[in-house]
Formats: sequence, structure tokens, C-alpha cells
Amino acid sequence: MRIIGIIAATLTTIAFFPQVIQVIKSKDTKSISLTMYILFVTGVLLWVLYGFYLNDLPIIIANSIVAVASTIILCYKIREIRSNLKKS
Amino acid sequence: MRIIGIIAATLTTIAFFPQVIQVIKSKDTKSISLTMYILFVTGVLLWVLYGFYLNDLPIIIANSIVAVASTIILCYKIREIRSNLKKS
Repeated sequence: MRIIGIIAATLTTIAFFPQVIQVIKSKDTKSISLTMYILFVTGVLLWVLYGFYLNDLPIIIANSIVAVASTIILCYKIREIRSNLKKS
Repeated sequence: MRIIGIIAATLTTIAFFPQVIQVIKSKDTKSISLTMYILFVTGVLLWVLYGFYLNDLPIIIANSIVAVASTIILCYKIREIRSNLKKS
């Protein structure tokens, strides 16, 4: 049954890759929620911190990967908002 | 330090709510990755299963909430793809 946990963690970690690729390629983040990614990046960074506290390498590694991916998405979102502000 | 874990889990769980609200209101999912949500929903459902195996209520509850939220987003994404297929 431990394999279920490993597959679950792998899927929820790599899930953000296709979103990162799509955002980088299209530079379109219109339907992506800014609030979601602010909350999510903050939460995932706290998970990394908690992982260090627990000294749990899987928590540290998985959340660090997700932190990088979701931060990239957040940056593209902020960039789009800024560029829209300049236009208007 | 346990509070850090609780805040982390709360943030990564509620993060999906603003995205669900935005998708329902706008019905726009263009910049949301289909692959991300297929992988993510599958992963989160496996997390729920793993939570039952561990008999860990926080894992079950947090992931069930995220599962519902991300499934709603996935459904709207699939609906948009279908409606675009009909148009073309």
C-alpha cells in the first residue's frame, strides 16, 4: 500500500509541469487565479519548512519541486497583470 | 512548529477555492492545463485512498476537499474543450 502513497505524491508533484510548460509557451495566464497561486506558493514553502522541521526528505523534495513550478506560474501571472496595467 | 504544518496544509487546501470560483464565474479555462488537472485529480484521489490506509483523518479530509475543488476545475476544462470541438 505504500506504493499508493508514492504514486500519489509523484502525480501531485509532476502535475504542475504541464501547466508550467503551457504558461511559458502561451504566455497566457488569464484563466489562472492569482489568489490561488499566492496561497499555494505560500503553503508549499511552509510545507518545505515543515519538512525540514520533521527532517523528512520526501516532504522537502516533493514540495521544493512544486514550489519552483508554482512560483514560475505565479511570476507569469503577475507579469501578465503588470503588462495589462501598462496597456490600460 | 506543528502549527507550521497546519498552516501549510490549510493554505494548499484552500488555495483551490479562488480558482474554482474564478472558473465557475468566467467559464474560462483556456490557460488552465488539462494534463495538470488529470494528473492532479488522480494523485489527490490516491492521497485520499492512502489516507484511509494510514487511517489519517487530516490526510483524508484535506485531500477530499482538494479532490472536489480540482475535479470541478477539470470538469469545466473538459466542458470547454468539448464546446470548442463542437464549434470547429
